[in-house]
Amino acid sequence: MPKQVDHRERREAIARALWRVVEQRGVTHLTLRVVAQEAGISLGQLQHYFASRTAMLSFAMDFASERTSLRVAQGLEKLGDHPHPRDVLRLTLMEMLPLHADARATSRMSTAYVLEALHDEAVHEQARHGLTRGRALVERLVRHAIADGHIAPGRDPATETNLLLALTGLTPLIELNVIEPRDALAAIDLHLDRLFDGNDRRA
Amino acid sequence: MPKQVDHRERREAIARALWRVVEQRGVTHLTLRVVAQEAGISLGQLQHYFASRTAMLSFAMDFASERTSLRVAQGLEKLGDHPHPRDVLRLTLMEMLPLHADARATSRMSTAYVLEALHDEAVHEQARHGLTRGRALVERLVRHAIADGHIAPGRDPATETNLLLALTGLTPLIELNVIEPRDALAAIDLHLDRLFDGNDRRA
Repeated sequence: MPKQVDHRERREAIARALWRVVEQRGVTHLTLRVVAQEAGISLGQLQHYFASRTAMLSFAMDFASERTSLRVAQGLEKLGDHPHPRDVLRLTLMEMLPLHADARATSRMSTAYVLEALHDEAVHEQARHGLTRGRALVERLVRHAIADGHIAPGRDPATETNLLLALTGLTPLIELNVIEPRDALAAIDLHLDRLFDGNDRRA
Repeated sequence: MPKQVDHRERREAIARALWRVVEQRGVTHLTLRVVAQEAGISLGQLQHYFASRTAMLSFAMDFASERTSLRVAQGLEKLGDHPHPRDVLRLTLMEMLPLHADARATSRMSTAYVLEALHDEAVHEQARHGLTRGRALVERLVRHAIADGHIAPGRDPATETNLLLALTGLTPLIELNVIEPRDALAAIDLHLDRLFDGNDRRA
């Protein structure tokens, strides 16, 4: 196996160990020592891959974003060659909410990451970059949906995009069992219904 | 000064020290030792008030909720005797977003608190109780607004409430400077416009 691939795989195995720590014990226990233990390697070996907790968290966050994109892409495949933008948005939003184990780990890590970003300039830059890029993808989708007549031309793409991303605000309600997952889906569907209201060309 | 009041004031002073730690250094630095230092008391004195980090965080969270309610109440006073439900909701949502120092500290603490709740049953119960109560207040407001003809009768109060609370999902976008505070306000106003659309009795 080429060394490059091995290195990448080792880092991914560490990222998965980090996920398990976040999922099972919580982000307050997320230290290099605990992750090394969970990954079954020594602290020294872990430090060979990540010089700091922040570096480890950054990689895990990137890896989580990739995994989320992959899950969205897999979901899109099932929607056929020309998926309706409403379905694409629904799928994306559902993968951003803590509705299954992988999405839950990503969601919790991402929350911890934003908190960390507030007091670390490098993390702030990376997190800001990631969220800006994700936001741009959603806005492009909204603009296309307007251009294609799926969403009314009078809608402001930027504000509609912010309202779509705001739906991740259902997260604490789900995590604390204040509402059921089906309530979250009902809210998302109602919001999407209104966004595509009167312009939805689906049969 | 009665001992009861003195005790309460001391706890509030500690809660404020805790806020400063959250605001200036971040929740990962939130330990009994750091808060004692910030409050200018010994660790032993702090432990006289709070037996654990969790107990301290719980009190600080309750205190933050009280402060938020107070800010909303003060805002409501300015709206006169019969404030429009749209203005009440707007005020409430604005105090839930990190748009000024106090609201920012509360928002960050609340995020940390939810993360903590996921791995501590007692915190989970308290956080769930607090959010359920807050959610119920908003739903009651929505139901009254429907009964009073401010919101269309066909709207589902429970789902509309979840969508209103979801607007706190603008938080990471604001905290990471991906959008400006005015963009967040535009999104809130657009959402409220639609909720009250065609039924808004204001002049």
